[in-house]
Amino acid sequence: MTDSRLAALQAAAPDLRLKTEPGDLEHYGRDWTRRWTPDPLAIALPGSVAEVQAVMRWASAHAIKVVPSGGRTGLSGGAVAAHGELVLSLERMNKPLAFDRVDRTLTVQAGMPLEAVHNAARENGLEYPVDFAARGSCSIGGNIATNAGGIRVIRYGNTREWIAGLKVVTADGEVLDLNRALVKNSSGYDLRQLMIGSEGTLGVIVEATLRLTDPPPPTNVMLLALTSFEGLMEVFAAFRERLQLEAFEFFTDIALKHVLAHGAVKPFEEVHPYYVVTEFAIGDEAKEAAAMAAFEACMEAGWVADGVISQSDAQAQQLWRLREGITESLAPHVPYKNDVSVRISRMPAFLKETQALLGQAYPQFEVVWFGHIGDGNLHINVLKPAEMAQDQFVRECEQVTKLLAQALKAHEGSISAEHGIGLVKKPYLDSTRSPAEIALMRGVRRAMDPQALLNPGKLFDA
Amino acid sequence: MTDSRLAALQAAAPDLRLKTEPGDLEHYGRDWTRRWTPDPLAIALPGSVAEVQAVMRWASAHAIKVVPSGGRTGLSGGAVAAHGELVLSLERMNKPLAFDRVDRTLTVQAGMPLEAVHNAARENGLEYPVDFAARGSCSIGGNIATNAGGIRVIRYGNTREWIAGLKVVTADGEVLDLNRALVKNSSGYDLRQLMIGSEGTLGVIVEATLRLTDPPPPTNVMLLALTSFEGLMEVFAAFRERLQLEAFEFFTDIALKHVLAHGAVKPFEEVHPYYVVTEFAIGDEAKEAAAMAAFEACMEAGWVADGVISQSDAQAQQLWRLREGITESLAPHVPYKNDVSVRISRMPAFLKETQALLGQAYPQFEVVWFGHIGDGNLHINVLKPAEMAQDQFVRECEQVTKLLAQALKAHEGSISAEHGIGLVKKPYLDSTRSPAEIALMRGVRRAMDPQALLNPGKLFDA
Repeated sequence: MTDSRLAALQAAAPDLRLKTEPGDLEHYGRDWTRRWTPDPLAIALPGSVAEVQAVMRWASAHAIKVVPSGGRTGLSGGAVAAHGELVLSLERMNKPLAFDRVDRTLTVQAGMPLEAVHNAARENGLEYPVDFAARGSCSIGGNIATNAGGIRVIRYGNTREWIAGLKVVTADGEVLDLNRALVKNSSGYDLRQLMIGSEGTLGVIVEATLRLTDPPPPTNVMLLALTSFEGLMEVFAAFRERLQLEAFEFFTDIALKHVLAHGAVKPFEEVHPYYVVTEFAIGDEAKEAAAMAAFEACMEAGWVADGVISQSDAQAQQLWRLREGITESLAPHVPYKNDVSVRISRMPAFLKETQALLGQAYPQFEVVWFGHIGDGNLHINVLKPAEMAQDQFVRECEQVTKLLAQALKAHEGSISAEHGIGLVKKPYLDSTRSPAEIALMRGVRRAMDPQALLNPGKLFDA
Repeated sequence: MTDSRLAALQAAAPDLRLKTEPGDLEHYGRDWTRRWTPDPLAIALPGSVAEVQAVMRWASAHAIKVVPSGGRTGLSGGAVAAHGELVLSLERMNKPLAFDRVDRTLTVQAGMPLEAVHNAARENGLEYPVDFAARGSCSIGGNIATNAGGIRVIRYGNTREWIAGLKVVTADGEVLDLNRALVKNSSGYDLRQLMIGSEGTLGVIVEATLRLTDPPPPTNVMLLALTSFEGLMEVFAAFRERLQLEAFEFFTDIALKHVLAHGAVKPFEEVHPYYVVTEFAIGDEAKEAAAMAAFEACMEAGWVADGVISQSDAQAQQLWRLREGITESLAPHVPYKNDVSVRISRMPAFLKETQALLGQAYPQFEVVWFGHIGDGNLHINVLKPAEMAQDQFVRECEQVTKLLAQALKAHEGSISAEHGIGLVKKPYLDSTRSPAEIALMRGVRRAMDPQALLNPGKLFDA
């Protein structure tokens, strides 16, 4: 601890845990993107809101840049610290603080993993319904900072819908106690909403009060094999019309190949080009009949070639693994990830155009498609050939992302549906937000963090 | 049209409709508050987004203050123009623009009355579920600018939850096309959310894309007579536990007295101190049995003294009128209105304290209580004695509002649940928002409207 700035920090907050070992700098300096070389000044691991305030007061006084840090499972480089920033990790602030049965809220520290939030809600007989595969390692604070979506958005919406209150430490070390779980509060600008999805650039989220809901109904999981991409929207419409969908996810045969190679159980004898995993409420005969009717209608129309319905929880999990295991199974191939969205009604035209575009642009690469068709959200993963250098691969992919961004602009879509902009999508922000919007965002940023201390260079250059 | 500024505006937008007759200045210069003397420069009634842009470019160039104006049914003075502002009325921009069956969205111009929005949704077999008594005269743009709540919040949330996209004209005449109805869009600050509830101080809402939902289930309406305020939360818990509540509203015997004097039908022979109107889903025997079980449990516990359940749509409307007619029936008494909220769990303690406070403070006034108990939202209307001058009455009421604001601060509540801050609640904003929050709000305002042209003096002094 020879750095005088860190000595000043330690003097200001004597009990604050600081790490400066090279292994720690590397570990905490990066997220699930692997493109940047971590190089933080140090890692601060506060144990209280007061310690977070002390860090930000020190950062303000010394003009030190700060990267707020959760589970670092992000895919857009939003938690990367590669330029001497202090990493402010919330990992020790990971506890539930209060449950209220009347308000149906759970107040937690921001570093609490999503899965622990799920469990704490269930222990109280209720549900926090936002969910995705990184649940075990991502933190609720990070979920809020990116307005995380996931596999239940079709039924429950994004993280934003579930945030009743936020406690935030500002760039100059003030605590904001935003909305305080009020159901109705029309008293000026909703800064809570502004913080949600701001990727750590407007304040450090330290606590959140989450709305909970009733436990989900009993459900079944169905896996469908589809004959063509065109049929996908038709199948979605047929199911949505008849059933209360809890999830409706799709993936391609190439995605399946990787998941099976990673240990999942093969669902069908034959190979089909497209697959859907859908989960829907059951519990009475009418609903089960509706599920069969939807399936049969799709078979008769020729959109679906085969299908299986879960007969047990174990089988439901097995079917889900085919979808949820994709990201992990692709990781060894260092994929270049696109996470785009359009309005649901624009999906067919956008899909057609994008397939043609990528078929032309990526003949040399393996491209894996999957995503949340019911939310208009596609994940397009391009896999790096083993022999190709990472730099060259990223360069080639970025050429195509430019074309994709143009298509998104034409279709009024978004370059980031749920991962956030971070560093990875920053060059393409103007495909989704107009110059006037970006100028206003910069103005808001200056109003909230005049020194541009918080997560600098993410989202836009300060 | 001798004013050279108005001549310049007319030259910039030759087809723009302008009104300067004294009767028009008075009509468009005030809202449902009657405390300020209207004195606008003129009324502009644009017919297109381009004309709104022209108005704002002119306003920027000439530093003219502008009051965006919808149905002017607001109760906080948010649409008052008393200092030579231009009133920018959206009243001619009142048409539906597009319906999308796949996205389940309805795009409308901001001046469309809420009731016309309801009808347009229903014509397409869907529902826009935000609702309140001013539906016939308020505009959707005004609803959005105050994040209006109303009688269905307990089931459907506030206006905020239903806004998929917003088109906004900024202070300098740029058009922002915010979120464009994307379900998932994590691409920087959600300026759409910032606009919702900003009371016309950050931009002029010109179009909105609204999410629609399934038509409501068949429902019954029940009117309950309660023996004490203490029983109210118990009755709410008993009903919420057993039924899918679409609404749960309460009012007092004094409120009932005024509604009956205004022509409503007397529901019970005897007078009771408190009443609840609740609406809940029916449609099968289990649900109807649950409703009876809830009612009987409340009778047995002694919380409920009498009750009636609707046997027809006509009777349901008759019961609803007892609650919905209150505001209109009080209008001749020029009420001083408080619209406060606390977390639902804080309701019992806050109610007790507030009742004691107002009993002491207002022995000379008639005080009418009603509101949305399931959202933690109380309306407390103080009626002006006929012989008292308006100024003195308001002065006396404001003394009590100071005490109420202190109680709200202690209970972490809000001085404005759903009416907005406007001019009326501006002196009490700091009971709900901290100095740091207010400073950040001012900063955001400066970023979005550096000349402070939009709705000046509302929410806070610019």
